[in-house]
Amino acid sequence: MRLVDQHCHSVVRADLDPAAFAALITESDRPPAAGTTPFDSATGLAVRRWCPPALGLPEYAPAADYLVRRRELGPAEATARLLAAAGLDCCLVDTGLTGAAGRPLLPLAELAAATGAEVREVVRMESVAERVDSTAAGWSLAVRAALESACAEAAALKSIVGYRCGLAVPPGPPDEAEVIRAAGAWLSGPRTRLADPVLLARLLWTAVEVCEPLGLPIQLHTGFGDPDLRLHLADPALLVDFVRAVEPSGVPLVLLHGYPYHRQAAWLAASFPHVYADIGLTVTHTGARAAEVLGEVLELAPFGKVLFSTDAYGLPELFLVGAAQYRHSLGRLLAGWQADGGCPAADAARIERMVSAGNARRLYRL
Amino acid sequence: MRLVDQHCHSVVRADLDPAAFAALITESDRPPAAGTTPFDSATGLAVRRWCPPALGLPEYAPAADYLVRRRELGPAEATARLLAAAGLDCCLVDTGLTGAAGRPLLPLAELAAATGAEVREVVRMESVAERVDSTAAGWSLAVRAALESACAEAAALKSIVGYRCGLAVPPGPPDEAEVIRAAGAWLSGPRTRLADPVLLARLLWTAVEVCEPLGLPIQLHTGFGDPDLRLHLADPALLVDFVRAVEPSGVPLVLLHGYPYHRQAAWLAASFPHVYADIGLTVTHTGARAAEVLGEVLELAPFGKVLFSTDAYGLPELFLVGAAQYRHSLGRLLAGWQADGGCPAADAARIERMVSAGNARRLYRL
Amino acid sequence: MRLVDQHCHSVVRADLDPAAFAALITESDRPPAAGTTPFDSATGLAVRRWCPPALGLPEYAPAADYLVRRRELGPAEATARLLAAAGLDCCLVDTGLTGAAGRPLLPLAELAAATGAEVREVVRMESVAERVDSTAAGWSLAVRAALESACAEAAALKSIVGYRCGLAVPPGPPDEAEVIRAAGAWLSGPRTRLADPVLLARLLWTAVEVCEPLGLPIQLHTGFGDPDLRLHLADPALLVDFVRAVEPSGVPLVLLHGYPYHRQAAWLAASFPHVYADIGLTVTHTGARAAEVLGEVLELAPFGKVLFSTDAYGLPELFLVGAAQYRHSLGRLLAGWQADGGCPAADAARIERMVSAGNARRLYRL
Repeated sequence: MRLVDQHCHSVVRADLDPAAFAALITESDRPPAAGTTPFDSATGLAVRRWCPPALGLPEYAPAADYLVRRRELGPAEATARLLAAAGLDCCLVDTGLTGAAGRPLLPLAELAAATGAEVREVVRMESVAERVDSTAAGWSLAVRAALESACAEAAALKSIVGYRCGLAVPPGPPDEAEVIRAAGAWLSGPRTRLADPVLLARLLWTAVEVCEPLGLPIQLHTGFGDPDLRLHLADPALLVDFVRAVEPSGVPLVLLHGYPYHRQAAWLAASFPHVYADIGLTVTHTGARAAEVLGEVLELAPFGKVLFSTDAYGLPELFLVGAAQYRHSLGRLLAGWQADGGCPAADAARIERMVSAGNARRLYRL
Repeated sequence: MRLVDQHCHSVVRADLDPAAFAALITESDRPPAAGTTPFDSATGLAVRRWCPPALGLPEYAPAADYLVRRRELGPAEATARLLAAAGLDCCLVDTGLTGAAGRPLLPLAELAAATGAEVREVVRMESVAERVDSTAAGWSLAVRAALESACAEAAALKSIVGYRCGLAVPPGPPDEAEVIRAAGAWLSGPRTRLADPVLLARLLWTAVEVCEPLGLPIQLHTGFGDPDLRLHLADPALLVDFVRAVEPSGVPLVLLHGYPYHRQAAWLAASFPHVYADIGLTVTHTGARAAEVLGEVLELAPFGKVLFSTDAYGLPELFLVGAAQYRHSLGRLLAGWQADGGCPAADAARIERMVSAGNARRLYRL
Repeated sequence: MRLVDQHCHSVVRADLDPAAFAALITESDRPPAAGTTPFDSATGLAVRRWCPPALGLPEYAPAADYLVRRRELGPAEATARLLAAAGLDCCLVDTGLTGAAGRPLLPLAELAAATGAEVREVVRMESVAERVDSTAAGWSLAVRAALESACAEAAALKSIVGYRCGLAVPPGPPDEAEVIRAAGAWLSGPRTRLADPVLLARLLWTAVEVCEPLGLPIQLHTGFGDPDLRLHLADPALLVDFVRAVEPSGVPLVLLHGYPYHRQAAWLAASFPHVYADIGLTVTHTGARAAEVLGEVLELAPFGKVLFSTDAYGLPELFLVGAAQYRHSLGRLLAGWQADGGCPAADAARIERMVSAGNARRLYRL
């Protein structure tokens, strides 16, 4: 079954030396501790399981052999093989990250060619806001105009407010006087990274207003990610007041990743019609344990509200691992349910179709 | 083995159309998202697994066929069959909800007849307090009198403070001057719903004082529930100061549901002699995953402190699903332990007896 | 495979009556609830599984028979048999607790003899600080001198700040004027237990400064423990600002226990090179469920960052249970991965070697 990858990033075009490759299979941007390697992890095992066969090596070829083979083929050929093997029908690509490991990423057209998939853009709203130049008094309107323009072709907007100040987003837009004050400080500073909670709240509420007439969903980072995060502030349960306040607008909210708070994300998806739960990043990084984690998501999340993605970034391997580990793990989970009398075969097949592609097609009108 | 259902609600007497039925198999009071149905969920599969046979249909009959059959039999006959199949010896019924989906619930005597079980009342303390009419200065005493009167026949009191202002209950009663001030505001307002944290704390501490001489337990909602909740404020770990302060009184505290914080509830049950952990609602709504969730509860919770319940509400199906899924899942969990050498058969049988009925009989003196 | 137990305590020398024994198999210091016994728990089953064979009884001998046999052998012989059966190569012993159930613990030399293991000390920093006598103005320097002296022979320092005021440790040392003020209050009081957050933060930052040139790790209590704890304040995710602030020093931070926040601990270990995740206490107390809990740790934690320990305390049984349950559970987990194609046998063996001993040997330079 071909998949709709509802949240991913592009991949590095250049060849990668072993250290750069290893750095990209972990969410950490730090060097590994002395005496350890990122290959000794659930993700590392999953890369060695799913990727060597796509390059003509046996499963679990040693990492060193794999990297030699990858360089022999060259990055274009290796990328094409790995992405084709992922079996993706459509990719929604967050274009907020423009490089990985200091190297540029493939433009979307080339990513489309290599995956054989339709590629649509997900616009990271903080990146849009960081590029806005205006007076303090004009910031709110300038951000709105920039978001409207960015949305013209987009499949969704994305927020990383969970990284910047946490998910306890207020249940309504901030007062404009406060916004102007905060914008004044931001616009007169170095503007490297928008982290002011008032501006971030204004931005997110503007996104809701912009998405409503367009029927566009908003994706929110929740749960684990890179070390820039304060994990407990990325608990999606903290979004509840925002979720309730957005509900009348009907704008769908997609809770990305969620782990280790994926049960909380599932509760929100079960409780509120406009909330959806993503499983990307989580399935890739939990490797051999992904079936259990998927099981935890499906305890409360309605099957029509769960969305596959890879959250692949930088390495084409992460597309293949995300897709292959997902297929294998959901299959194993549902086979276990069937063996225990808990799910007829026809329902299992329907669940797979919904999570793999159907839910995303309906939500994003693909 | 017949069960003691230590926390449930009554069921709708009237016939239910498909939309009303579907609305009652989920904890959400919202309509399902476009393109989804509540049957596509762990609970939906569990209803289709356990209920059709009680009405003469095969397991996993399509929902539409099941609903046709249910209407053919009529609500009285369907209810009688489903409740009898649940195999309940005793039900402790929270009478704080008087209707479901806008329809009245069976009176307790009729519920007793249909289940064939002894039925005892659990009094929801917030409902008692909301009916109290008094001066502000007399509110505390009037609430005490009302609770004392309500307790005359009750098996337990129940608190939903977790819904109203969260579980960080202070470790002692509030100052009476503060209570009078808050009561003044409450009594002069619309009085639709008691949500003032001072009054709620006063109420809960009065409940402790009333329960102490009677030896009555207090049940507290913790963990997931309907969308009215702010989930992270219902983490039972937040109760710790209250739990410690109640300990000298010996009043048992029963942490209902708990999920997804059931490991936290289990830790409290393991740490404090007067704390118990319930598994109701959780087992029903996690369906095919309930064995794993029960396993998580039994990691820390002493086997003598875990209590079965269904938390069924509105639909007789939820009694049968709660009971059948529990029996099946605990059986599967313990069979797995035995197969792995982790639990002798005699211990497994004892654990089943304790959780199914023995612990509740001892705690509630049934 | 012989194990490095990177966090444990010594054991009671004296004979124990059944009540004292039962009290020591639970983390609770309370009497069991009426009608319950600590043997009816995951730990109780694990003690009955792993310990009777070491004393010449069959697995799962009734608790009463086991206790009779234990007294027949006498505490010295029973202790020697149980500790020898644990198969420990090295034990890092927290000497902050000097008794258990009101009885003194074996001195380290005797513990070394009975285990057949190398024994190294872990110094509990709060105990050191509580023994410091100084002026308020001299407290910081006196604490530093006392820690430096205590570190001369130690394998690590340990902090229980999670018990005392929670893990939201500030990302830098407190202002010295504040420390002097707080030290004044502490030194003029009863000095039973250091709980002032300013002094605890000063202590921990002094520990970082002392450990840096010595290359000593700091162990921190995180997650569950005895009823003295406020569990939600022991969530290791709360440490993130402290973790980031410590990172430049390179001082390793070992997150003990972690459960039920072990996935959060694993994320920190995956994100930061100097963070490690321990599995002690957790494996012992989750018994038949330990394989699943270990699986949850290994979802995100790099295999080179996970450390075995028993956290045994008081009873030699807890060494054997910790070791045997760990061996069994990790074996079962990895066998499951292999059966599912998720881990080659050579990798499984390497993971066992790393977690059992290799990671600890490297970290503590054993």
